Amino acid sequence: MLGGRGFLGRNLVDLLLRDGASVRTFDRPLASAADQPVFEGDVEEFEGNFIDGQGLEAALKNVDLVYHLISTTVPSGSNADPIGDVTSNLSGTLRLLKAMSAAGVDRIVYASSGGTVYGNPCVLPVPEWHALQPISSYGVVKVAVENYLHLHSELNGLKANVLRISNPYGMHQRRIGAQGVIATFLDKLMNRKPIEIWGDGSVVRDYIYVADVARALLLAGRREKSGTFNIGSGIGHSLNDVLRVLQQQTGLETEVRYMPHRKFDVSQTFLDIERAREELGWNPFYTLEEGCARFCQLMERAREPALL
Amino acid sequence: MLGGRGFLGRNLVDLLLRDGASVRTFDRPLASAADQPVFEGDVEEFEGNFIDGQGLEAALKNVDLVYHLISTTVPSGSNADPIGDVTSNLSGTLRLLKAMSAAGVDRIVYASSGGTVYGNPCVLPVPEWHALQPISSYGVVKVAVENYLHLHSELNGLKANVLRISNPYGMHQRRIGAQGVIATFLDKLMNRKPIEIWGDGSVVRDYIYVADVARALLLAGRREKSGTFNIGSGIGHSLNDVLRVLQQQTGLETEVRYMPHRKFDVSQTFLDIERAREELGWNPFYTLEEGCARFCQLMERAREPALL
Repeated sequence: MLGGRGFLGRNLVDLLLRDGASVRTFDRPLASAADQPVFEGDVEEFEGNFIDGQGLEAALKNVDLVYHLISTTVPSGSNADPIGDVTSNLSGTLRLLKAMSAAGVDRIVYASSGGTVYGNPCVLPVPEWHALQPISSYGVVKVAVENYLHLHSELNGLKANVLRISNPYGMHQRRIGAQGVIATFLDKLMNRKPIEIWGDGSVVRDYIYVADVARALLLAGRREKSGTFNIGSGIGHSLNDVLRVLQQQTGLETEVRYMPHRKFDVSQTFLDIERAREELGWNPFYTLEEGCARFCQLMERAREPALL
Repeated sequence: MLGGRGFLGRNLVDLLLRDGASVRTFDRPLASAADQPVFEGDVEEFEGNFIDGQGLEAALKNVDLVYHLISTTVPSGSNADPIGDVTSNLSGTLRLLKAMSAAGVDRIVYASSGGTVYGNPCVLPVPEWHALQPISSYGVVKVAVENYLHLHSELNGLKANVLRISNPYGMHQRRIGAQGVIATFLDKLMNRKPIEIWGDGSVVRDYIYVADVARALLLAGRREKSGTFNIGSGIGHSLNDVLRVLQQQTGLETEVRYMPHRKFDVSQTFLDIERAREELGWNPFYTLEEGCARFCQLMERAREPALL
């Protein structure tokens, strides 16, 4: 699993172990030797460099299925350096595909992005057949990776399943940076820091609890053919909705600052998830309220920021 | 004009000069100092390196409109080295967009590929809204470039017109390599060499005479907004059709060898050109017979291979 120590990765590793799978992760070396080992269970942790492919060959030996969950960029930062985005994420993935082919691994599940590949949608909820017109480099690169996977599937028999995941939230999400508003809002609420919202808070997204995403990844890994699936709740919620839910769940309040709207944010999007329901046999279990309640509960139980 | 000395470029330069435009070209340095000057008319010829951007800044000074006609790869070779394809064509174009922005040039016409971006089409003739599912790296990179142009158009007001050109043929087309079957067939016929056909010759393509393409490029450069247009004849012809027409026009025959089908070749494609008719006010003038007749005539008049 590439990116096994990341947000989606940690949740998926836990689920796979409970499912009885042997799991191997591939990530950058930990920043400091003092860091705790990441996983408690029976996980082989490989380290290397996704961008130049160093260490990949060893990590791919005797593997049945690759989960590719690495992204070196986030939507908000990607437009500032599209060449870096292409060089790291796109070329890195092409190197991965070559290494997989050399190692005889013919199965991959890729975490694409339901929030960026479509751009500003013409149809809501957005179905998979919607035109792909991203307005961030992050989204353009996701589309290019999807296209290369499709190409290898058509020409070389690769079994490639692409999950276009909306906005996942939950345990192990980083609270700083741009990885997700729910973790950020929750952290600010719990620490009584001001919350900053880009725009007037009316921007609508499809938030999906990470345990639901992990289950979709598990199911996609079992498929015997290629496919592309939206993975989201299927329901749109505004930032103001999210904030209200979190305030209710925690009973906490904090200052909210509204900032200028960002151009690369699509104004409204949520996903049509019928195909995943029918072909993956997957359904989201958690509503926004339930997912947030669970996340708050785990956060309060942990309380120790290092465990986030 | 990037790629002004190439096949499309030379034809477009001629047309732009007749239209009264001031033309500047940007190409790799000529292979040998003994090479003839390429253009006779009033053309500023710049040299540099598209891949690393060397020389671009100077070439972009005081330019109103950029024609981007460079491709460093061809469909048939691109799958062997997709990383090279991405590094040269995609990163090169991102560098161009950055340089254009720095130079204040806000208008670009891009030669995309109507024969590869759609992959194996579900609808014939293929309209612009058809899903983009290329099965060659060449096509994947064209789609990624289109997406970056769209992104800059949405976010930064770039006027970007994309022409998805089918299979152009005519004067200045290289007869060796994979640039086009019509020039290759014609050359083999005139030199009584055997013609090799991949597959059984039933593969259907949309062949468009290069003078028609040049006119579409001219018209696209005048647009005040962004858009994407199929540019083709709108009619499909098999390889066997093409061969028959060329044999009729030249009165020549030669040996034909049928070779194994290539996987990355889509089996059948021709373009829906209604949008270009309506929004560009463009129509193809030449039928396949007329275009081939004109091409044969020019070839016979030239006869000197260097003038091809």
